[in-house]
Amino acid sequence: MVGSKPLNLSLYKLAVRHSSAAEEIRQGIKVSNERLEFLGDAVLGAVVAEHLFIKFPYRDEGFLTETRSRIVNRESLNRVGQKIGLSNIVESDLSDKGLYTHKSIYGDTLEALVGAVYLDRGYDFCRKFILSRILSPYFDLENIITTITNFKSKIIEWSQRENKEVEFTLQSVTGSQRFKEFTIDLLIEKEVFTEGKGPTKKKAEQEAAKNACEKLKLAL
Amino acid sequence: MVGSKPLNLSLYKLAVRHSSAAEEIRQGIKVSNERLEFLGDAVLGAVVAEHLFIKFPYRDEGFLTETRSRIVNRESLNRVGQKIGLSNIVESDLSDKGLYTHKSIYGDTLEALVGAVYLDRGYDFCRKFILSRILSPYFDLENIITTITNFKSKIIEWSQRENKEVEFTLQSVTGSQRFKEFTIDLLIEKEVFTEGKGPTKKKAEQEAAKNACEKLKLAL
Repeated sequence: MVGSKPLNLSLYKLAVRHSSAAEEIRQGIKVSNERLEFLGDAVLGAVVAEHLFIKFPYRDEGFLTETRSRIVNRESLNRVGQKIGLSNIVESDLSDKGLYTHKSIYGDTLEALVGAVYLDRGYDFCRKFILSRILSPYFDLENIITTITNFKSKIIEWSQRENKEVEFTLQSVTGSQRFKEFTIDLLIEKEVFTEGKGPTKKKAEQEAAKNACEKLKLAL
Repeated sequence: MVGSKPLNLSLYKLAVRHSSAAEEIRQGIKVSNERLEFLGDAVLGAVVAEHLFIKFPYRDEGFLTETRSRIVNRESLNRVGQKIGLSNIVESDLSDKGLYTHKSIYGDTLEALVGAVYLDRGYDFCRKFILSRILSPYFDLENIITTITNFKSKIIEWSQRENKEVEFTLQSVTGSQRFKEFTIDLLIEKEVFTEGKGPTKKKAEQEAAKNACEKLKLAL
């Protein structure tokens, strides 16, 4: 699964031990994969951040943050955890029904596995593991990006489908000459529906459109 | 400041360029330290996570998360950014008054600097930079930890000072035999003031006490 033999097998055993199957190593101290999950989550965040930073040299930090959160979130990590086969090796004390309701167990375990790989093999190996075994096979970056940049067109499409009038208007500009903040109102049928803020009009519009997509629960 | 000569000086120049002094490199594309800040924030989070993971082998992930957030937050990073001298080299277009109100500029720049060091020198060097030049000189871990673990005693002290009766009561236990969740009510003068949840009674009490400290705005 990791692409190499473990040097320290006990780390990996710990990584697949869910808190429901925690082992009491001494009085009051129970051991499960939750600490490794904390570590793995941080390492995963850093590796994905660097990957996006390098891959998109001309995109701003808002785009990078949004793209990362599309990759590193509970739902998508659960999906990947199941796909790479963690469901067969997770050690838990949950019934089938319990496993069904605690779906996040696979995403949590995936993060713990990243933590174990990091401790076992160091950052560079772990980075390659994340890129080649998690990111590249299971995430379609092109697709993720298309949905991100299109909040405004989503709303326009929606307005045409629903036959509603949508309008963006500038509410205010604050700040100094060079360090401005624009606030844009998104109006539906002449009523303010959402607002968005940003350093340019375009970004504030995107933000307002994004908020409207969320409020309307439009699938992206 | 970093402990070594830069290999790629332009990264460091970019790291100290605040968005108010962004440079337009081509039409519509402005360049400032915000992308590096995104990257540095992630790397800082991972390095601090690992450091705490190793340093506290018997503490749970809640403790690790809380401790990290005491270290990596806007306020403390601003403080450190100023102390290591970033105020002398930050390039911004803000007036003195602007700088005073945009205090986060130093914390942001510190994160961007971490991002620059990471790209310039790689993870291991950057890790050492963070530990030896940021964490070790400017954060008193012992002190941070003492305040964290003491929410309950803080509340007890407060109750004695204010002459109020404080009580913890078990509200409910849910979950299976081994995967329990306790909910504890914290009562002040017989009225429920906050609640806390956790896998043990003790943790649920800490959580309830923590929420009460926040609600009462008790300095920690």
